Amino acid sequence: MRVLGIDCGSERTGYGVIDSDGRDHRLVTAGVIRTSPREPFEKRLAEIAGGLRAVIREHAPAAGAVEGIFYSANVQTALKLAHVRGVALLAIAEAGMELAEYSPLEVKTSVVGYGRAEKSQVKLMVASLLRLAEPVASEDASDALAVAICCATRGAYERRLAGAGRSL
Amino acid sequence: MRVLGIDCGSERTGYGVIDSDGRDHRLVTAGVIRTSPREPFEKRLAEIAGGLRAVIREHAPAAGAVEGIFYSANVQTALKLAHVRGVALLAIAEAGMELAEYSPLEVKTSVVGYGRAEKSQVKLMVASLLRLAEPVASEDASDALAVAICCATRGAYERRLAGAGRSL
Repeated sequence: MRVLGIDCGSERTGYGVIDSDGRDHRLVTAGVIRTSPREPFEKRLAEIAGGLRAVIREHAPAAGAVEGIFYSANVQTALKLAHVRGVALLAIAEAGMELAEYSPLEVKTSVVGYGRAEKSQVKLMVASLLRLAEPVASEDASDALAVAICCATRGAYERRLAGAGRSL
Repeated sequence: MRVLGIDCGSERTGYGVIDSDGRDHRLVTAGVIRTSPREPFEKRLAEIAGGLRAVIREHAPAAGAVEGIFYSANVQTALKLAHVRGVALLAIAEAGMELAEYSPLEVKTSVVGYGRAEKSQVKLMVASLLRLAEPVASEDASDALAVAICCATRGAYERRLAGAGRSL
């Protein structure tokens, strides 16, 4: 199954596409959509939407995976992120892809085996699971790949549990 | 100037289009995009985006106006609303329209002349300003028209202040 993971952010939205059978994962592409804080926010949303649609068009993933929003201190930051996330969910829905959502804890547990793993550990494990010679340079792209790996692993696990008939 | 006002909501997104010279306002269209809570959230976002794009395509407004998000008690509700708002801002940006944002206080002050006006007062004043025989049935559509009227009035006022050269 081909999975797109998205790491939403108003300045940098990471994306990562992998092919996976639930155990073996292969990198298809990964990168970052950068937008300038000097641009009006709605134009940045349009750039993010355009970037995600281009990735989806080129690589045709079957599923899109994103993290849930877990606001801690700064509600304004969370609200801004939710605008970007709305645009990402729209791109997934309009492409007819399955959507999967995971908590940061689920993503870290799935990739590192430990929910409180450091960012550096996630980055190393993403590179290891994808058999890359070195870690992906961008942290946002690496985080997006982690979400994709979580989706591929959990999706396969949940399919095994359910027997068959689930689309993800 | 033709203005689209949007009242974002995950279950009901109101919209209202008016023609205005900043003093006299005329109703072009108004309505509500309803989505079912039984549908997955991303599909509802796609329905809202599709509905807004159809209104924009049919009526070609020059500007789109929305309220800012002012969370009070329920942050989860505000985060959900922010997803919808992201989709609305995207529709405005992708149509090449000007975006205007107002606080609920600004909208009420602009329409009723009093920032703490009741919803029923806003509804009556919207109908009066648009010279309608009776208030718009849907509160969401009426609220969207109030935002459009605020944008048209404030836009014209700000143009007068600025002399000329502003696009809104």
